[in-house]
Amino acid sequence: MTVQRVLPFTKSLLEQAVSSGDVVIDGTAGNGHDTHFLASLTGATGKVFAFDIQQEAIQATRERVQEFDHVELIHDSHAKIKNYVSQPIAAAVFNLGYLPKGDHSIITKAQSTLSSLEQCLELLKIKGVLLVVVYSGHEGGSEERDAVMEFVSSLPQKTFDVLKYEFINQQHSPPFLLAIEKK
Amino acid sequence: MTVQRVLPFTKSLLEQAVSSGDVVIDGTAGNGHDTHFLASLTGATGKVFAFDIQQEAIQATRERVQEFDHVELIHDSHAKIKNYVSQPIAAAVFNLGYLPKGDHSIITKAQSTLSSLEQCLELLKIKGVLLVVVYSGHEGGSEERDAVMEFVSSLPQKTFDVLKYEFINQQHSPPFLLAIEKK
Repeated sequence: MTVQRVLPFTKSLLEQAVSSGDVVIDGTAGNGHDTHFLASLTGATGKVFAFDIQQEAIQATRERVQEFDHVELIHDSHAKIKNYVSQPIAAAVFNLGYLPKGDHSIITKAQSTLSSLEQCLELLKIKGVLLVVVYSGHEGGSEERDAVMEFVSSLPQKTFDVLKYEFINQQHSPPFLLAIEKK
Repeated sequence: MTVQRVLPFTKSLLEQAVSSGDVVIDGTAGNGHDTHFLASLTGATGKVFAFDIQQEAIQATRERVQEFDHVELIHDSHAKIKNYVSQPIAAAVFNLGYLPKGDHSIITKAQSTLSSLEQCLELLKIKGVLLVVVYSGHEGGSEERDAVMEFVSSLPQKTFDVLKYEFINQQHSPPFLLAIEKK
């Protein structure tokens, strides 16, 4: 396959953006897959801050990353990122929606999502990337999607490139990627 | 830069999709840059068919690719692709709009563009890609863009993946890419 699907493309951007020693954020730890991947990219000289509001997600992520000492798991809302992170970051990644295999009624919501994205953009270093995988098929998902789209579409083009990477001939609202790079 | 701009990303997809010995199509030869790039990818054992309705473009492309013997320049509409090409193709590329540095009143138009895209999709081999760079800022451009979007959005997802790769925070209708891969 030449044209990468959304999740592999997201990983390939992270691989390019994150180097050994970097500080990065996983805004939605979930089952810990991205946290683990980020931890391998930064290496032990870097640091991964991984947020989730659900204890179940924090526990699943803790188990998945137990081989690493440079992951800080934070059982709090990603809307409070700046309470925990002050260093410049090379990347942040978000998977919006609900916890896979978890309680589907607990979802990320527009207000806290926008707040956390703003905080990440402030922390982002030049050439750093903020990657947001948007799932909108669930109840409440389209409101969050619309709010995020409005926010990122109006980011100043002098400071940010905002890419939308989307498969447009599919049914059932497949996820798409927003990739924001600081200039 | 981690997030590639539209034209470099288009070239990187061509690099992945096209191998030595392949047959490919440049649907809009223009000033010959893509034709030259494709000719280097297919090598002398492959073949590039390059179309343009403007003699000026054919001449510019001829000069640019004079080092290659495996480029066939066709001074005709890309709506007549099947009159010239019957082999399975690994890739086709289109840059919609007008000839850069040429007569801006001569533009690609919805009807012939859709006809040529359909012909390319029929010729495409499995894992082959059709790449369409859509410029819509010029007069008549938005009608063509809308027609192309309607066409590609309704391609069956069992047979094609249709990616839209677009920077969404820019003014002045920058070009975006449609990348269609045959499954």
